[in-house]
Amino acid sequence: MRVAVLGLGLIGGSAALALAEAGHEVIGYDTSARTREAAAERFAVADDPAALREADIAVVAVPMDSVAAAAEDFAPGRFEGIVTDAASIKGFVRRSLGGHRFVGGHPMAGKATAGFDEAEADLFRGRAWALCLDEDTALADWTAVARLWLSVGARVVPTTSAAHDRAAARISHLEHLVAAALALVADDPLSRTLAAGSFRDATRVAASPARLVEGMVVHNRAELLSALDGLGRELGTARELVESRPGETGAWLERPRRLRETWPPEPGEAEPLPLTRADLLALGETGGWLESIEDIDVATVRRPRVKSTP
Amino acid sequence: MRVAVLGLGLIGGSAALALAEAGHEVIGYDTSARTREAAAERFAVADDPAALREADIAVVAVPMDSVAAAAEDFAPGRFEGIVTDAASIKGFVRRSLGGHRFVGGHPMAGKATAGFDEAEADLFRGRAWALCLDEDTALADWTAVARLWLSVGARVVPTTSAAHDRAAARISHLEHLVAAALALVADDPLSRTLAAGSFRDATRVAASPARLVEGMVVHNRAELLSALDGLGRELGTARELVESRPGETGAWLERPRRLRETWPPEPGEAEPLPLTRADLLALGETGGWLESIEDIDVATVRRPRVKSTP
Repeated sequence: MRVAVLGLGLIGGSAALALAEAGHEVIGYDTSARTREAAAERFAVADDPAALREADIAVVAVPMDSVAAAAEDFAPGRFEGIVTDAASIKGFVRRSLGGHRFVGGHPMAGKATAGFDEAEADLFRGRAWALCLDEDTALADWTAVARLWLSVGARVVPTTSAAHDRAAARISHLEHLVAAALALVADDPLSRTLAAGSFRDATRVAASPARLVEGMVVHNRAELLSALDGLGRELGTARELVESRPGETGAWLERPRRLRETWPPEPGEAEPLPLTRADLLALGETGGWLESIEDIDVATVRRPRVKSTP
Repeated sequence: MRVAVLGLGLIGGSAALALAEAGHEVIGYDTSARTREAAAERFAVADDPAALREADIAVVAVPMDSVAAAAEDFAPGRFEGIVTDAASIKGFVRRSLGGHRFVGGHPMAGKATAGFDEAEADLFRGRAWALCLDEDTALADWTAVARLWLSVGARVVPTTSAAHDRAAARISHLEHLVAAALALVADDPLSRTLAAGSFRDATRVAASPARLVEGMVVHNRAELLSALDGLGRELGTARELVESRPGETGAWLERPRRLRETWPPEPGEAEPLPLTRADLLALGETGGWLESIEDIDVATVRRPRVKSTP
């Protein structure tokens, strides 16, 4: 497979390295000459993004606000292949890319540090890669991109842009606002000196660039509001217990304790799944993922092992 | 100094190892015969807690609910020395120990695992150790315990039970409830499969034993309610921004970002401080700590370096 990678930061760079290692014909491009130079020691790098249009699949791995503009280089007429991306909000990207042979993707992997120097071929091994099978996504295009990320060791999770963005609000965007709020609550000198592990982990992502988090808020507003309201309800229950029935808090804490103790979900047995739109979407809804595609129309998949909690 | 350590789990065991290494005469006791046996290879261990009453200072390092009962072994009449503890809530312990020569303490160190096998002499090196100088605490007793924990490398933070418990609610107890609420919000199969680093860290302490967290709620109720309300206000501001002015979220995120980026606080220059009650309490209020006590009435202290933020 000839794969073009546009943007060679941590994610794009790691994807390019991994794809090259998996035997694909990779050609990369980055706006930074320094990055192009470093990357050229590892795989083919073009000096002009137009050179990437010969590829079968274009991976657009630029910051979220730039995906739409960057994808214009691969607009229909200029590019015959499939376009996929790695941005953390899918509905927004999809809305700005109508007409393309577009398959939205989001690898659930990263590091605290950025840039090509931090890229590594193993970044996606065993990690979930959400891949959107929306109404207007061609199943054949989706399958081609799924094969690509399976070849670098990712667990490809079939989902929709809407379902992905709802989950992302719950597992990441909400956490960023909560971390910020917790940092504000503990803003007194004694608290800051006494704070240790609980505070460190609960607030880690509060140090993220404010512009990055604002992007989550702006582009995933509705789902983030819904997640905030869900959190408000849970914290309301907690507050009521603390105020009126503190001795019952332990019972309330049991369910979240088991939920956290059984996370990340353990893989169940491998099973075959027909590569149909309905089967794939049903798999994603149960938290399942593709492990390989051996055949033209059957995948090997796994679902989370059923929790042994009452 | 002859130091008795009652309870040889992670904290008591580490304290005993550290104190022995620092040259103190340590005698320990634990209700578990297996723990006593393991500990006896490292320092003196008694088969009867009564043997601990010869010490100058008794360190009660048993679970919070048992501190009061355990401290009865060191009640006035039976024991002439100072009693100190390591429980995570200070007002509650203090209220149940009236009449003792008691100095409440709380080391801000720990591990995800428990028990003497996990104990290590270096656990407290460079870590904050809150030490309560309440109205009824004798300054000489406080200073004797401060010297003890300074000798194992801790940063002794002078505070009051009330100020400690307020800070603990903000930096730890609140985080436990928030982690539980976040785990509940993300309780759907797709979210659990896609969840990665943000969710992992934000919810880590949701896996804590429910009984332990219930203890925080029951014994630090008022401060936890106040912290919950503080969080509610911050999240209310965030929600209003997300709903009505998403493009202004970045500006709101700047302060928490700087707060987290400048945490943990960097030590400022060493300075001398007279060992008076007023000076010590003022030091703690500014987030400062003792580094050593060379003299009978002067300590070397440090305060957090002033943040260079606007």
